[in-house]
Amino acid sequence: MAADSRAPVTVIGLGAMGSALARAFLAAGHPTTVWNRSPDKADDLVGQGAVRAATVADAMSAGNLIVICVLDYRAMREIIDSTGHSPADRVIVNLTSGTPGDARATAAWAQEQGMEYIDGAIMATPSMIGSEETLIFYGGPQEVYDAHADTLRSIAGAGTYLGEEPGLPSLYDVALLGLMWTTWAGFMHSAALLASEKVPAAAFLPYAQAWFEYVISPEVPNLATQVDTGAYPDNDSTLGMQTVAIEHLVEASRTQGVDPTLPEFLHARAEQAIRRGHAGDGFGAVFEVLRAPAAQ
Amino acid sequence: MAADSRAPVTVIGLGAMGSALARAFLAAGHPTTVWNRSPDKADDLVGQGAVRAATVADAMSAGNLIVICVLDYRAMREIIDSTGHSPADRVIVNLTSGTPGDARATAAWAQEQGMEYIDGAIMATPSMIGSEETLIFYGGPQEVYDAHADTLRSIAGAGTYLGEEPGLPSLYDVALLGLMWTTWAGFMHSAALLASEKVPAAAFLPYAQAWFEYVISPEVPNLATQVDTGAYPDNDSTLGMQTVAIEHLVEASRTQGVDPTLPEFLHARAEQAIRRGHAGDGFGAVFEVLRAPAAQ
Repeated sequence: MAADSRAPVTVIGLGAMGSALARAFLAAGHPTTVWNRSPDKADDLVGQGAVRAATVADAMSAGNLIVICVLDYRAMREIIDSTGHSPADRVIVNLTSGTPGDARATAAWAQEQGMEYIDGAIMATPSMIGSEETLIFYGGPQEVYDAHADTLRSIAGAGTYLGEEPGLPSLYDVALLGLMWTTWAGFMHSAALLASEKVPAAAFLPYAQAWFEYVISPEVPNLATQVDTGAYPDNDSTLGMQTVAIEHLVEASRTQGVDPTLPEFLHARAEQAIRRGHAGDGFGAVFEVLRAPAAQ
Repeated sequence: MAADSRAPVTVIGLGAMGSALARAFLAAGHPTTVWNRSPDKADDLVGQGAVRAATVADAMSAGNLIVICVLDYRAMREIIDSTGHSPADRVIVNLTSGTPGDARATAAWAQEQGMEYIDGAIMATPSMIGSEETLIFYGGPQEVYDAHADTLRSIAGAGTYLGEEPGLPSLYDVALLGLMWTTWAGFMHSAALLASEKVPAAAFLPYAQAWFEYVISPEVPNLATQVDTGAYPDNDSTLGMQTVAIEHLVEASRTQGVDPTLPEFLHARAEQAIRRGHAGDGFGAVFEVLRAPAAQ
């Protein structure tokens, strides 16, 4: 498709991620205007065909789709506010990292400014931007997203609209990242236990991988069903029985000199679930405590 | 192979797991003697060809391989001690669940009693006993294990000898179980975040599964290498950068009313790793804190 038939895009913020976004729009043939607080960050992009805007106001006037990716939501608002009054019909696609609360507050602020607002969360590193498989979550008004979905496909082929609620992309973002850090921390806790007996992680790795494949992963869809239905069948091993084994993990961690905090957390939540009447249920009942820690 | 050509085995403890072990030995043609504190637990097994021993001493005399699986290590020692003095050349294969410390202490105790001792950890539920894929970890004297490896294959085809150190099976056991509980808790924490916005876990599940497959799992071998080499390259995202995102997870958890303990733990350990000089390293550097929480 020729460049002039494609929608113009403005990219504000040219850190590693913002620059990758601008490059992907350029590569897909979108007339791309860029702005960054330090203007020299745009040099390479200008060499690739981008137009450098002298001011934020100029950047906001170049086209109606404004993609912004900066340090945090506060910086994002300050940049847009600096223009005084923005032209009508601007659509902000905010790909800055933050919390669901940030996103909701910023959506309300954008509405006051008379701008349409889509919040997004990029589930990728800069080098993955522009590929078919890359995932960005979006939330905001459906018709606004639909009008620009095709253009946004240039930065992330697997871009996904989650709904009207602007906090959802950030919520999915932290949910996936949390799962990642937690799983990695769990692996490293286990590696620390084995290291305390001079067993290298490489020796443990094949068992951990088989355990992931045959035991841990197959149960995750069952946990999802349990969480959604509120019924936690025990599958051969009740929370009461598992608590004893969790105690072994706590004691082994302490004895081997490994940080016992993570197993202690697991044990405390299992005990709380038991106190709430889930002794005969499976491990999934711990969800009831995580979702409502103070409830009784 | 005819039953009479196979080694005799004694199984002590006929809970769900002990009964499954005895059934598997019988199915593989081993003459099997059984004992349980409540003798009626042996009724079904006797119907399948097992010999019921009237006393522990009788059970210990029926053959030299004694497989024991009871409530805990204390119960295990009390049962063996109740015989007064055991016949010479007994080999105890203790499949009772416990800690590495339990296993080491019991190995020392067995030596004082003049018994050979193999500690084992069953990585399966009772219904999986006797299959080719079932994994039991073993630790203890190599020649003792080798002499009985063939017989032990009847209960777990994938039985694995880890080394002379009797604490290793329990250590691998709690390491794998810890990885399992931690990963499941991580998934349920994420499900709780989404539930706070009325998003069902079923809607989040496909993203979680893809994230496991393409992001979380592929990094685990790299983490193993990092842990073993003590070098934690940042791969596009330093611990300093990730700490900001972990703060978003902590704040989102608090705001959405979800238990913030798990994200707070991740954040605290990332901060400690940064204070120890790992700000420019990757998330793997958290291992240094987990393995030596008090070090500086």
